[in-house]
Amino acid sequence: MTKSKIWFATGNKHKVVEAATVLAPYGIKLEHYPLERVEIQADDPADIAAYSLQQVSDSRPLCVEDAGVSIDRWGNFPGPYSSYVLERLGNSGILKLMQGEQNRKAHYVSAIAYRDESGVHIFHGTVDGEIAQSIRGTNGFGYDPIFIPAEGDGQTFGEMPSEEKNKISHRARAFCALAEWLTK
Amino acid sequence: MTKSKIWFATGNKHKVVEAATVLAPYGIKLEHYPLERVEIQADDPADIAAYSLQQVSDSRPLCVEDAGVSIDRWGNFPGPYSSYVLERLGNSGILKLMQGEQNRKAHYVSAIAYRDESGVHIFHGTVDGEIAQSIRGTNGFGYDPIFIPAEGDGQTFGEMPSEEKNKISHRARAFCALAEWLTK
Repeated sequence: MTKSKIWFATGNKHKVVEAATVLAPYGIKLEHYPLERVEIQADDPADIAAYSLQQVSDSRPLCVEDAGVSIDRWGNFPGPYSSYVLERLGNSGILKLMQGEQNRKAHYVSAIAYRDESGVHIFHGTVDGEIAQSIRGTNGFGYDPIFIPAEGDGQTFGEMPSEEKNKISHRARAFCALAEWLTK
Repeated sequence: MTKSKIWFATGNKHKVVEAATVLAPYGIKLEHYPLERVEIQADDPADIAAYSLQQVSDSRPLCVEDAGVSIDRWGNFPGPYSSYVLERLGNSGILKLMQGEQNRKAHYVSAIAYRDESGVHIFHGTVDGEIAQSIRGTNGFGYDPIFIPAEGDGQTFGEMPSEEKNKISHRARAFCALAEWLTK
């Protein structure tokens, strides 16, 4: 299964930079495959990623990722609709929903659907944490400025340097799992 | 194009009852076609309905509807994700988001994708209104208890008898447009 280069189909360049950094130490080069993908409505990001991957007919080794943040108090909202909800409500809308809430637990999930000549393979990554009381930090993207990972020192992902975020993030973990499998 | 019977592909029986009432005066019988449909993530409910319709291979005259409520203050959220958001946040979550907001304008949209031997046709219905300050009434479903149509007397859809809601609702209007076209 050893590959020295794979493609990442996404419309989000931030994700490519993050993932490329994770794959580099494994000797795997990640190329951006620009794609505005068709996303289905489903609860499992693995289903969404796998469906989007199906829509791309290209024989090169290729992956699609779907990610989201899930908030306990609101039944795992926004989950698979994280990017839509972020566009509309923003982090300030999420903070409004969380006003006065005791249970602030949340987790970030990443699912990768990867396809090569051997078929389609799914890889997951998760990081637990909680929703901050305010927007903090300008690193990262998405919900990073309001997400405090449980394994950190209380900083949000938005406050962490990217090297630090890349050690524990959901996306880093999913791409590590893919890299381990690709190089085993 | 005259048809005396068409099928409505949906997993939501409430919708079938509402639509059947609208079609009956036109002499059109509406049959439930049980379907847990594949929904894509898109901003336009017509795109979502048309995509779902494509997934059903059946030669009978058949329609799929997609509907949602759009709140001005939050960039038309929840829009196409209305059913997901209702499950997670509930009407109380929406009211929390609207706490202290002056601009409470909202509109309900319905889009029908209908297919018969002549091809695929799209029909729309809209109703303007605003988000109530509290949950009121137990009629209807979905966001009805917090939606006050502008053309009414201040009652929410949840407080209105269904005959009254069916005169002005987004769904009734879309199905009327379909019925007019089918019987013209």
